Amino acid sequence: MAAATLHRYLGKGRKLVDGIEKVTGRARYAGDVHLPGLLHGKLALSMYAHARIANIDTSAARAVPGVVAVLTAADLPTRGRQPASRQTTTLADGVVRYRGEPVALVLATSLAAAEDGLAVLQIDYEPLPGPVTPEAALDPAAPVIWPQGAPKGDADLTAAHAAVARGDDQADHEASNIHEHKQFSRGDALAALAAAEVVIEGTYRTSIVHQGYLEPHAVVADIDPVRKQLTLYTSTQGQFGVRDEVARLLGLRPSQVTVIPMTVGGGFGAKYGILEPLAAAAALAVGRPVRITLDRSEDFLTTTPSPASTITLKLGATRTGTLTALVAEIVNDNGVYPFTLGGIMSTLLGGYYRCPNVQIDVIEVLTHKPQAGAYRAPGAPQITFAIESAMDELARKLDLDPLELRLRNAATTGDPMGNNDPWPSMGLTKVLEAAANHPLWRERQPGSGIGLAIGGWPCGMSPAAAVCRVDTDGMVRVHVGSVDISGVNSSFVLVAAEILGVPPEQVEIVAGDTRSGPFAGPSGGSQITYSVAGAVAAAAREARRQLLEMAADMLEARVDDLDIREGMVQIRGVPGRTIPIGEVAKRAEEQAGGPGPIVGDGKAAPAENAPGFVAHIVQVEVDRETGRVKPLRYVAIQDVGFPINPLMVEGQIHGGAAQGVGWGLYEALRYDERGELLTASLMDYTLPRAADLPTFEAVLVENPAPNGPFGARGVGEPPITAGAAAIANAIRDATGVRIYELPMRDEVVWRALQQV
Amino acid sequence: MAAATLHRYLGKGRKLVDGIEKVTGRARYAGDVHLPGLLHGKLALSMYAHARIANIDTSAARAVPGVVAVLTAADLPTRGRQPASRQTTTLADGVVRYRGEPVALVLATSLAAAEDGLAVLQIDYEPLPGPVTPEAALDPAAPVIWPQGAPKGDADLTAAHAAVARGDDQADHEASNIHEHKQFSRGDALAALAAAEVVIEGTYRTSIVHQGYLEPHAVVADIDPVRKQLTLYTSTQGQFGVRDEVARLLGLRPSQVTVIPMTVGGGFGAKYGILEPLAAAAALAVGRPVRITLDRSEDFLTTTPSPASTITLKLGATRTGTLTALVAEIVNDNGVYPFTLGGIMSTLLGGYYRCPNVQIDVIEVLTHKPQAGAYRAPGAPQITFAIESAMDELARKLDLDPLELRLRNAATTGDPMGNNDPWPSMGLTKVLEAAANHPLWRERQPGSGIGLAIGGWPCGMSPAAAVCRVDTDGMVRVHVGSVDISGVNSSFVLVAAEILGVPPEQVEIVAGDTRSGPFAGPSGGSQITYSVAGAVAAAAREARRQLLEMAADMLEARVDDLDIREGMVQIRGVPGRTIPIGEVAKRAEEQAGGPGPIVGDGKAAPAENAPGFVAHIVQVEVDRETGRVKPLRYVAIQDVGFPINPLMVEGQIHGGAAQGVGWGLYEALRYDERGELLTASLMDYTLPRAADLPTFEAVLVENPAPNGPFGARGVGEPPITAGAAAIANAIRDATGVRIYELPMRDEVVWRALQQV
Repeated sequence: MAAATLHRYLGKGRKLVDGIEKVTGRARYAGDVHLPGLLHGKLALSMYAHARIANIDTSAARAVPGVVAVLTAADLPTRGRQPASRQTTTLADGVVRYRGEPVALVLATSLAAAEDGLAVLQIDYEPLPGPVTPEAALDPAAPVIWPQGAPKGDADLTAAHAAVARGDDQADHEASNIHEHKQFSRGDALAALAAAEVVIEGTYRTSIVHQGYLEPHAVVADIDPVRKQLTLYTSTQGQFGVRDEVARLLGLRPSQVTVIPMTVGGGFGAKYGILEPLAAAAALAVGRPVRITLDRSEDFLTTTPSPASTITLKLGATRTGTLTALVAEIVNDNGVYPFTLGGIMSTLLGGYYRCPNVQIDVIEVLTHKPQAGAYRAPGAPQITFAIESAMDELARKLDLDPLELRLRNAATTGDPMGNNDPWPSMGLTKVLEAAANHPLWRERQPGSGIGLAIGGWPCGMSPAAAVCRVDTDGMVRVHVGSVDISGVNSSFVLVAAEILGVPPEQVEIVAGDTRSGPFAGPSGGSQITYSVAGAVAAAAREARRQLLEMAADMLEARVDDLDIREGMVQIRGVPGRTIPIGEVAKRAEEQAGGPGPIVGDGKAAPAENAPGFVAHIVQVEVDRETGRVKPLRYVAIQDVGFPINPLMVEGQIHGGAAQGVGWGLYEALRYDERGELLTASLMDYTLPRAADLPTFEAVLVENPAPNGPFGARGVGEPPITAGAAAIANAIRDATGVRIYELPMRDEVVWRALQQV
Repeated sequence: MAAATLHRYLGKGRKLVDGIEKVTGRARYAGDVHLPGLLHGKLALSMYAHARIANIDTSAARAVPGVVAVLTAADLPTRGRQPASRQTTTLADGVVRYRGEPVALVLATSLAAAEDGLAVLQIDYEPLPGPVTPEAALDPAAPVIWPQGAPKGDADLTAAHAAVARGDDQADHEASNIHEHKQFSRGDALAALAAAEVVIEGTYRTSIVHQGYLEPHAVVADIDPVRKQLTLYTSTQGQFGVRDEVARLLGLRPSQVTVIPMTVGGGFGAKYGILEPLAAAAALAVGRPVRITLDRSEDFLTTTPSPASTITLKLGATRTGTLTALVAEIVNDNGVYPFTLGGIMSTLLGGYYRCPNVQIDVIEVLTHKPQAGAYRAPGAPQITFAIESAMDELARKLDLDPLELRLRNAATTGDPMGNNDPWPSMGLTKVLEAAANHPLWRERQPGSGIGLAIGGWPCGMSPAAAVCRVDTDGMVRVHVGSVDISGVNSSFVLVAAEILGVPPEQVEIVAGDTRSGPFAGPSGGSQITYSVAGAVAAAAREARRQLLEMAADMLEARVDDLDIREGMVQIRGVPGRTIPIGEVAKRAEEQAGGPGPIVGDGKAAPAENAPGFVAHIVQVEVDRETGRVKPLRYVAIQDVGFPINPLMVEGQIHGGAAQGVGWGLYEALRYDERGELLTASLMDYTLPRAADLPTFEAVLVENPAPNGPFGARGVGEPPITAGAAAIANAIRDATGVRIYELPMRDEVVWRALQQV
């Protein structure tokens, strides 16, 4: 925390700028938008995982008072166009391929009327066979889901989360339920494994996990029927991407679509655009504004959860604990459309530790389930569960301290990642050293139920711009194009405050839409603070320069002699002569022949990314009677580079760690053999509640990122990565039993205990 | 039009960018804004010009279903605070001082319920005496309207319209119905007048004229009751001024108030904020959003029309037609609150012509009528009617061509204005020369009903900023803080298109609110094109610089060898190598370690203003039986500097000339002796209809302004100034009768004809 003392505001915790709005219900979400003539949309969702749509009889639905239209695929301008990213939904055309796929849209003047219309909408299906699990899909006898080849999107969502190169395509490109097979390798892993002094082997299974945001998907599409101008009010992590996809699917120019990002009630990777093209197409079809909001069950049924992964992992090492080989096969259950996480999963799996011989095969499988999508650090909890469980077992086999084993092999800056690119500046060793010094680890007793795991994430790095304006009342307004899903605005205010020398209350962040906003990348990949804060800083510096130039004239002083403190320009060493920045701004807005109003732009385009690494230590208590695992203490150590607003950083760490506990102990979307979702409500889908969670202690390690603003690194994704593995290792420590399957619910643990 | 050939887009007429929105009803006005929980407000307006409010019984009104509250002055947080500008209205507290003054506000869940509530609201008045005309107010025996001194605002609206110095205060500062008496002088005018070889003398009267916008005042105030954050959606000419005034009156910080300027259905000086503080106070009082829209009669009763003026003018000249003396007294009827136009009226009256001896007294009088306010070129139609009628008479007396007399005496750059400051670059002589060459003037026959008058306006010059962003689809978006009341955005697109080398369809102007917008002055004083277009040009130049820098890298060429044509960057002389600017922008938004997204800011703060002068020639036909005057042809010659978008410039000239005809022949708000408005509907208040207007021919003179963007001058106000005088001179030519009173309705002309 040494760096904080250099700063007046940076590095000191400060509450959320929009916390009061949110807790008092004043924040405006997409579902709160009301427009004249608004129609409420209710989706008819497929009842089958695979079926032909034999007939849709809309007459009864259309006869319901208030129902204005019942739309099917044939009514939409999107018909015949493929989404660029298969995250986006329109309406099924002839065939449904997962339970929950939207088939028709009832539009009515009230939600109640739309629901009444939906209740009498008659859709006849002819069920068809098809695999709903990867095992079934990989059976050579299984029907091929996409005989003509799966519809592939242009967009690689992984790229939004982590700028990493992708491996070599191993697929044979014949029609198959494998949409991609890639191999990542270096050295000769099979030979090295065969020659290894010690080998650890295991198959790890993870479940389909939902992002579990508080606010289900919601969008309002407004249409100017004359000029075909669309305005979308939506809950999104990235307005620019949504705009481009909606325009493409509707055959409009991007400039005909304006996306206004509303307050987001949680995204976690799932809000890059799902319903927007459908709402937009419906508005275009009927010429009126359309609102679609999903209820919780609809959201579970039709959105984009994480893929489930099966990871077979073999590690080879010397007797002294040096890794020599890593061989892995990853099978991802991606649901009905291609979704590719192999690149990032391999990059991490083959990159956490130095190992000269690596071979990772990733087999991406299609099934009759909803399409998989991004969920905070996509792919990382899965591979981290595998590698960190295996490392724990390796340490036990070698009778080494598991932390010591990790330190010996930990990758560091310049070492190859799984894709063989070198790691940029990273701090795995530093977080391990901090873990070694933490009392929970240092003073642990064998068998006390304490486990350790590391994890990491490369972090994205989109270029970004910001505009900083000083107002006549002294308010500093910073205009950005990013969406605040995680408290980033509450960090930006400190950046501008620090540079301009004004109290943070005098700074306001103004979020732009696709028409007004300066560009920023989407709020994913832990990148917003990393990339946008640099632009905010640059814009604030330019505004400061303009302020001082104008103030020098007003105070008859040299620019170099001036400073700004508490919002007042002052001459260094001359205490009496001060002038509020609002007055300087006023002069600038009034002076004929002067430099003009105080407004400056700033950009940032970091040249490399800034991986964030964590070491999580968790202590659990296991009830041997029931198998119930109770997490007691949780220490989340993270290399954050520099915590611009430590309160926000700690919030990210708490939230990520809580979700990691969810991955580890509770959460799973379960489907039956026909592809019916068995966990379509919060009663069945076990999101952890506060009482299910341990106390989290966040420990911030400051290992500055060379390209980060003030040394900051991305912090959003790393904290979700290690939890499941740390808990598995803690259970192993407490019980002697290794669990290979997530979530580690009572029954799973109990069964494993029975086998000892 | 020579300059236009230098340009690709500038100087070439192009339609309104928002014309289709407006004609198809898609444009969103303030009255269209709907918010959850919205309350509709209906104002109880005083029935008396002066009365004590004895009692307000709200019980019956409150009992009406749907009525939520009935507010009086005591319920508002504004109580006890004086508006900075008396343009703004709250609620009368104890005493009403004009017919139409708001007394109470009924708030209901529907407009119908509010109207029902208003119908049964019981307000008891005790009528009080008081002067309603300047003649009565100036009677020493008259009750003094403000015995404790009139409430004076800080704001001088004149300054917003024309940056001119003000004269010496002649008032004795005892309580009186004269709120200001100033004298402007140079030389010894009384002596020069006494010694003059020829003297012309007359007293000219003008009426109270309403701005006659299509859209009556409308505002929606939204309130966050927790943080006391106000958002106003309003029809305004200047969002920043409205914000500051609302904040001051409500005791909030300006940053707690966001003003979102909506599409404006005409302002003409009356929309700098009237109802906004009241709507905001009401929203704050009840904690819900409030909408107040005026109907036409309410708007006539309670808003801020032009003052009526009585101008006694004496001109002295030599026999050869050189002006030697100008002595004038101006009495303005300002209604119930101070409103000061003396500075600008004297500046113009004493400035159109070179005259060594000038003495102008301005007596600003209070009466029990609604407060006067700004109306397009405030004060100019009045003094122009006087001086241009007098010059016409002087020419006749000297047997000189009236245009020749004007040319001999016309002021030019550097000559003193009425306030003795020198004229900046101006083109009075040039428009007179153009008039001399126009066939309507050159080929006229004496007695054919042709009249000439000149007029002018100094033009404002607020500093302004703009931000220019290039999007990945090649769209150029320019963010400005100005309100488009007159087509300025349709000129800005050409400025950005010209500089960036893109078709105008690829340019969009994005108007900011007080939080998001770069600063611009209010849309008044003919200043927006003059000041903001310069900022747009600077921002576009910066974006161009960034585009070329990035494109040089992509095309492997030198920046100096690049050009942009039709939205494509190209290497000069290498036809094949081109790249669309959208692709350059995309690269900038993606390139790690690059310069960052294409966004540039620009500022303009012209060092001097750029007066616009006109010469109007009008031909009329006078029916001697009825006195009816029919304008037949109308030639409006104007020095526009450079017409960035000639279609917009001509639109301004047509509109201003039409309003000038209204001043001359039709429009007047009439009050009876008790201060009751007799013309409170469009049936009584005679706005000219299309059939009442002549064909307008606009002639653009290009006399570049040294500080204007591409030489442009302000064009909005000049065309309203000369019409009434030109028509009076045409009537004189047609009939031999001089009319000294506006409007010159049938009866006025008929009576004058009877006296010949």
